[in-house]
Order: sequence, then structure tokens, then C-alpha cells
Amino acid sequence: MSRRAEIVVNAAGRKVPALVNGREQVAYRGVGKHVPDGRKAAPPVRSCASYPPNGDKRAPDLETALRECGLRDGMTISNHHHLRNGDRVALEVLQAAARMGAKDLVWFPSASFPCQEPVIDLMERGVVHHIEGSMNGPLGEYCSRGKMRGMGVLRSHGGRWQAIQDGEVKIDVAVIAAPTADAFGNADGSHGKSACGSLGFALADSVYADRVIVVTDNLVPFPCVPWQIQGGNVDFVVEVPSIGDPAKIVSGTTEITKSPDRLLIAENIARFLRDAGIMRDGFSFQAGAGGIALAFVMFLREMMKEAGVRARFVRGGSTKYLVQLLADGLTDFILDGQTFDLDGVRSIGSDPRHVATSPFTSYNYNGKGNFASMVDAVVLGATEVDVHFNANVVTHSDGRLLHGIGGWQNCLFSGCTILAVPAFRDRIPVIVDEVTTLVGPGEMIDVVATERGIAINPRRKDLLDAVKGSKLPIRPIEEIKAEVDAICGGAPRRARFKDNPVAVVKWVDGTVLDTVWEIEG
Amino acid sequence: MSRRAEIVVNAAGRKVPALVNGREQVAYRGVGKHVPDGRKAAPPVRSCASYPPNGDKRAPDLETALRECGLRDGMTISNHHHLRNGDRVALEVLQAAARMGAKDLVWFPSASFPCQEPVIDLMERGVVHHIEGSMNGPLGEYCSRGKMRGMGVLRSHGGRWQAIQDGEVKIDVAVIAAPTADAFGNADGSHGKSACGSLGFALADSVYADRVIVVTDNLVPFPCVPWQIQGGNVDFVVEVPSIGDPAKIVSGTTEITKSPDRLLIAENIARFLRDAGIMRDGFSFQAGAGGIALAFVMFLREMMKEAGVRARFVRGGSTKYLVQLLADGLTDFILDGQTFDLDGVRSIGSDPRHVATSPFTSYNYNGKGNFASMVDAVVLGATEVDVHFNANVVTHSDGRLLHGIGGWQNCLFSGCTILAVPAFRDRIPVIVDEVTTLVGPGEMIDVVATERGIAINPRRKDLLDAVKGSKLPIRPIEEIKAEVDAICGGAPRRARFKDNPVAVVKWVDGTVLDTVWEIEG
Repeated sequence: MSRRAEIVVNAAGRKVPALVNGREQVAYRGVGKHVPDGRKAAPPVRSCASYPPNGDKRAPDLETALRECGLRDGMTISNHHHLRNGDRVALEVLQAAARMGAKDLVWFPSASFPCQEPVIDLMERGVVHHIEGSMNGPLGEYCSRGKMRGMGVLRSHGGRWQAIQDGEVKIDVAVIAAPTADAFGNADGSHGKSACGSLGFALADSVYADRVIVVTDNLVPFPCVPWQIQGGNVDFVVEVPSIGDPAKIVSGTTEITKSPDRLLIAENIARFLRDAGIMRDGFSFQAGAGGIALAFVMFLREMMKEAGVRARFVRGGSTKYLVQLLADGLTDFILDGQTFDLDGVRSIGSDPRHVATSPFTSYNYNGKGNFASMVDAVVLGATEVDVHFNANVVTHSDGRLLHGIGGWQNCLFSGCTILAVPAFRDRIPVIVDEVTTLVGPGEMIDVVATERGIAINPRRKDLLDAVKGSKLPIRPIEEIKAEVDAICGGAPRRARFKDNPVAVVKWVDGTVLDTVWEIEG
Repeated sequence: MSRRAEIVVNAAGRKVPALVNGREQVAYRGVGKHVPDGRKAAPPVRSCASYPPNGDKRAPDLETALRECGLRDGMTISNHHHLRNGDRVALEVLQAAARMGAKDLVWFPSASFPCQEPVIDLMERGVVHHIEGSMNGPLGEYCSRGKMRGMGVLRSHGGRWQAIQDGEVKIDVAVIAAPTADAFGNADGSHGKSACGSLGFALADSVYADRVIVVTDNLVPFPCVPWQIQGGNVDFVVEVPSIGDPAKIVSGTTEITKSPDRLLIAENIARFLRDAGIMRDGFSFQAGAGGIALAFVMFLREMMKEAGVRARFVRGGSTKYLVQLLADGLTDFILDGQTFDLDGVRSIGSDPRHVATSPFTSYNYNGKGNFASMVDAVVLGATEVDVHFNANVVTHSDGRLLHGIGGWQNCLFSGCTILAVPAFRDRIPVIVDEVTTLVGPGEMIDVVATERGIAINPRRKDLLDAVKGSKLPIRPIEEIKAEVDAICGGAPRRARFKDNPVAVVKWVDGTVLDTVWEIEG
């Protein structure tokens, strides 16, 4: 099989396949080293003559819509993940395709979640050939065990836009779950019983897919205002009783950590931003929805108040903590890629300073710049980071693929990229000699903040100088690693793999950065 | 020269050139008869590696930006016309190109205005080869006299999007005047000293052009919110003292007619909508900025209040009269393509129910439907209409090309298209045996409303039935024509032309509907 075909060594020294799912790949060449020379994907020109003049594109059900879209074996079907673990639409689409007898589909979600575990059954039955997209939890583990017929392709949010834009992935049918839509296909995520905030992850799909189906449980009379998805890109609209479980769409997991160690990390990062002079009037930052990141926002907020400092913008994933910054006048704008809790949803639906962004504006590397490199500081997580500051977010140290990349790779382009990680988890050190899977090149990672100290990448002399004389616990990363290894009884055992690539990790420019290998046992 | 090449007769019986500016044409085949089979234009893939990470794309001046864009002889330069007769940017761009020694440029504005008359000098000097786009006033007359080296190509707003989208026109450098922008290129029209409202006419240019320059006189710190033009599509940002003359940008010409005849036409149209049952709860309409159209809105507003009827949406060109409808709760939304007065600018900049649209959402025919066909009624003007309801908006009866098409052709797809025209102008009858230039096929035009009666297209038996028994002055179009001819002393003399095509009129699908010929004398 082709997956066992030629393996090359890329500029990061990682072994990567030259061919992935029958498609030739460019091996990673280094940050900013691969300059694309192609043209963007060109979807078919359509005609109003083929669409109802009254704008009513409703189809009675998903099967009808899929049939009208010309569903065939081997097609690529896409979904977005704004409904997260509450999503009902993606699975229904694939199961409808299964009932229609489709085989060998490529499923191309912007991310998959445990609620989509039944896709394993569809893969076993030959309906789905493989998944291209983030695989969180059971689907990732299935891939790890070498059971997927095709290779997984892991991309960042920006990389997914890039791949669609550049024609690396051609979507045959995009199915977009929409919390609000009209019969013409204008759709939005900020209102309705299944409101999820932004629909930005579906935007590339709507623009570039051959056919687009909007599925909604809240059909409103034309026009659906605002519309983040434009009806002029949509072929069919399907009404369903429910697109998802609201309790799981905005998951309520956005709670600040209670762990004293993690609170310490969060506070140290906030102090770092303050003492390094990054926290200044007009600055910007991004922090995700993890417990440490949320606590960091709380600490930073107090320091901003104390210093009388106001941010120009903060980037979401938005949560109530960012919304509070906006309400308190501590930031002019929230530029939001996805909306994590109900406060975020309410805010993006009502406050013009809370702006929905897309992977194009924020993250697309093969474009004329993006927002990510204009952010002063970003706080991210990682499963592993090595002494050269290379980091991993997709596999655990046992080699299992359990997480997607999200916007993580894209955020590395910020002015100061800070990984907030506990020094060990379940007595397994997080700082290692070499990451199991390389997802972020060390040159892009500036600071590793643990409860045992803050390590600054020696490449960033400016940051080392900036915090000289501060009370921050700045330490060499090797020193922190040695301390942790001693506590844990040595470096972690390296994962053992079979000689079988099961997925690749793309860099933001579409090149292949690393390989996920089949795990043993 | 190629313009004298093969002439064919199209489905409307009009003689059209088979080749325009070296490009093969498809002759008009009838409404909805031409189904495109190509793929959309594919601009080059770019890379963040080529753009400043801090997002600062400022160039010191237009010449530098044009040089960095690789300005060369023969390139196509585009501009939008949202600044109307107050625009300073388009002319400055072409004059800068002239100083740089460029020759044979194609100028591709969304429309041109009398303030751009100096482009004639640039055409005389060989800097500009020809204009593709609406030519209002002196530039149209110059074209009419056969003086332009290339052929003019007249397109509707939707047709311009279609031509760019379909790759019929490849824009090398788009220059976008922006009333507000940030250094990354995010831009908007609704704020700033030169605020003009929507920037929708520049959207296709920003998406499909090889290179994009934003020119602004109101640079704000990133992010410019809202952004209608996305910085991710922009190459350079140039700050200038002034992009235009605010007094002429929102021209203040949006005044209701005082002519008793025209007021009568306006009132009759409002009564027609009411009595034909089109004015009902949830209905929609579009009316432009002409004196009759504005008066029509005033009459309709009173009838809506009296009947307790509320529109779902109204389409702009927005004016204070539409804004008043929104304020009075007589419509849920304004879907706005361009903003004609200061009340419109203020409203679109502050009221989320006043929504900026683009030629894609509203008018693009080679897409998956558009808004225009979902509008219940539209009130438009015309220079001529014939007894078969064919109409002309670009030439006068003397053959001179003096007007652009605007959204006129696109609006013909509404449920009820009403031409509001005086029966004669300067003692020249408006209703004729055959229009000088065919811009709108008669089958698309439902009603011709004059001060001497309302003619309903015999194809629309439903409308004839709907107003049967009403007090409306419904008359056959031939009867109105005969009456007017008697008053004016006969039908107008037909324009005399040389055997030289100087411009073509495109239909909304990109086919060639008619030809504008060089005038004699």
C-alpha cells in the first residue's frame, strides 16, 4: 500500500511520507522557507438559472439534499466543529450517506469529537475511508492503532483553510450546521436554541466546496441577519428538529483551574507579560479555554487594572473572562475565532466590538498576512515540549493520537509564544529530550512556563534581557527538566511504534512536518 | 482592427461583435439560456513569508505601491465608485501610473463620473487604452465618438462581479479608496471624514485581483472594525490627505421631485403596489435615488402606515427615506448596496438592521441565486422603452452613451419590475418603436408607469387581473405611445451611427446583449 511508500527526512529531521493518500507531498522546509507558486482552487461557476428565483432552497431532508448534490463513492464530505461535543449533524450526514449506499468517503471535519465515535463503525463498514482533520479522543486512538484505511492528515485551523484554498483538499459536499439560517442559505451561529457563536470554521467550506448544504433547527424568514455564511454559496437548506445538544455545544468546561500549581503557572505568566513590558497600552494577547489560560486572564486583568493598561484587542476562543475584559473597558475588541461559553455567545451576538473572525483573517499562512503574527503574546498548552523548545499537542508520550492541532500552530507566530504546562502529568515528565510528535518547531516557541520555573528560549535574548532583575523564576529548560526527571524517576519511556505511518502533521504552509506512527500493542 | 471583425445577430435580434478587445464573446442567448460550464478565477497563492509579520503594509505613496505591485504596460487597474463624483483616488492612480511611464492600461472602474474627465487626456496620451466599466457623462461621450482605442464594455454591478469571478476580466492591481482602514488593509466605508457607507463594489476586486492597494485618509490602529474589505487580501496601504470631496461623495442630490407629473407617476406606482396586492406584510421593494423613486417611497410609506403593513426588507441605494422607514418600524431591514446620503451613511455605520451587501450577495447571476430575484417589486428609470417593453438606460435617443447600467439589469429579476418614466423629455418621446440600445429584454419588464398612464406587460396577465376594477390609469403601451407621438409631433428621429462598434452591453450572464455604435457628426 502507498502509505508504506517512500519516507523522506525533512528540514526538522523528521521522517515523513512522500505520498499521503495518493497525493504527493512537500516535506517541511523550515519556517517561511516554502513559498507556494500555484493558484487558488477554482470552484465551478454556477448560474441563477439553476436555482429557485424565490430563493427557497429547502430540501425535505438530508438524503434528498445529498442525492441532489450528486453524492458518489469516494467523495469528500466536510463539517465544522462549532457545535463541539454536542454536534448531531456530522454523524447524521455520514449515516445518511451510509443508508444511501455510499462507500469510501473522505470525512473532512474541522475537528472531530468523542460524540462522533460511531464514525468508527462507518469506517469498519467501508462507508468512510478515512478522516482528514483533527481527531480528538476515540477516533484519534482508532487511527493510532493503524485501523483507518487512509492516512489521517492533521492540520491547524489555518492549515485547513490553506489546504482548501490551495486545492489540496477538494470538498465535494460541505454540510454546515447552522444555529440560524434562512431558506436562501444565509446562516449564522450567534442566535437560536443551538447558538454556538461564530461559524468561521465553515467559511472556507462554503466558499470552495462544489456543493453546500446548510442544516438548521432555526429557520427564519429571509434575510437571516447577520449572515456569516452567504446564501449565494449555498445549494440546499435542510430543516431538522435539532442540530445539537445545547448543553454540550457551549460545554461549560471553561472553568478556571483550582490546582495551586496551575494557578501559580498562570500567575507567573501574567507577571512575565507585565515585567517583560509586553503588557502595555494598546497590546494584544490570545489565551484559550484551558484552565491555566483562563486563570492567566484573571491574573492579567488585575495587573492591567492596577497599571491602568488597556489592550487594543484580545483574541478568542472567547469566554466569560474575555467578555468581562470588554465590559470593563480593558480591551477595545475581542477578535473571536470560536465561542466557548454562553457569555461568549451572548456577547458576539449583541456587541459590535466582539467580532467574529475566520481562519482566513486570523490564521491562513498562504495569504497576504494574517492576524496571528500581530498578537503580542499567546498562552498555549502542549502535551510535550523538548529541551530545544519543540512542542507536541497531538500525541501523548505513549504515542496515542488524542488531540487536534486547533489554532495552536498558527498562534506560534505571535510576538511571544508561551507554553503553559505542568512540569509533569500523572508522574510523566512533560519536558522531554525529544517530542514524540513534532507539531511546533522550537524556534517558534519563546517561553515554557511550569510550576517549577519559567524557561525562556535562548534565541530570545530580548526577552531574557527584559526580565533580568525581575523576581520571576527564570531558569534554563534543562535545569527544570533535570529536576522533574529526578522527581519522576527518570525520563519517560519513549513510545514504541510499528513501521507504519498512520497520520501526518502538516505545517501551516501545507508541508509535512511530522508523522504519527502506528502504536505497538 | 479587430473591432470591425465579425458581427453576429444574437437571440434578441441585435448585431453584436464576436470579438471584443481581442477576446471571444458569447452572443446573448435569451434569459436563463446561457449556462456557464467553467471554473471561477483563481488568483495566485501568496505566503505570509512575503508580508510583514507586524501587519504593517504601509507604502509611503501610490507610486511606490504601484511599483511594488509590478506595474507594467497593458495591465488592468480597477477602482470602485462609492465616492461617486467626489472621488480623488482613481484619477490619482492613473496619473501616478502616467508619471511612471505606463502605457496601454485598461481602466476597470465599477463606474466612472464626470470628475474623472481627465482620463480622456490619459487616453489621448496612450496611458489608458480603454475603459471597461460604466461611463457616465463625458467619458461615455468620448467613447461614443469612437475615440477610445479599445471597446467599452458595459456591465451591470452583478455583471462586473460575474466577469471578475469568471475570469473574463483579470485585475492586475485593484486600488481601493477607503474612508477607514488599518495598516494591515482591513477597510470600511461607514466611518471617517470621507465616509461613503458600503464598500461592496470593491469586494470582488479585493478577492480576485493579483495585487490590492488600499488608499485611506483615515488610518486607525489595527483592527479597523468593522472591516468590509479584509486585510488578508491586501498588499499595500497608502495614506493620503484626502480620498475625496465629502460634499460630492454623498451628493445631496437625493431630493424628491417637485414636478407635478413626476409626483403623479410616483403616487400611481405606490397605488399600483397597494392595489395589486404586492404591498402586504413581509413584502420587499427596491427603489433608487432618482426623484421619482424617492417620491414613490414617500407615497408608499403613507399607504403602508394606513394599511398597517410592514416590509421584511427594503433594498438600497439607501437614502434618508429608507432610513426613516427603518426608524418608523415599517421595515425590518435595509439591505444596502450603496449609500446615497449622510443619513444612509450614519445608519449603516450604527444600526445592525442596516446591512451592507455586495454585488455577490445581491446581483451575481453566475452564482447560487442572489437577492435580486427575491425582491417583490423594484422601481427603476430608463432613457427609452419600446412597445415590447424592451428598455435602454445607457444611451440617449441621439445615440450618445451617457450612463452606466448600475444594478438596473440585475434588478429586472424582481417579482415586479416597474419603469418609472416621463412619457417624454425635452419633447422627445420616451416610449419608442425600438430602443436605441437594448439593455433590458422586454420579457423582464412588467410595468411602465408614465404620467399619462400605466402600461402592464401583456405577459403579466396576473398583474392585469390583480388591478382589474381598480381606479388606476391602466392603458396599453401603444395607446400611450400614440398620444405622446401626437403631442411631440411624431416618433423621434432615430440616431444615426457609423458602422463602428464602440462599446458592448453585457447581459448579466456575461453574454453580449447589444452594441453601442459610433455616432455620426
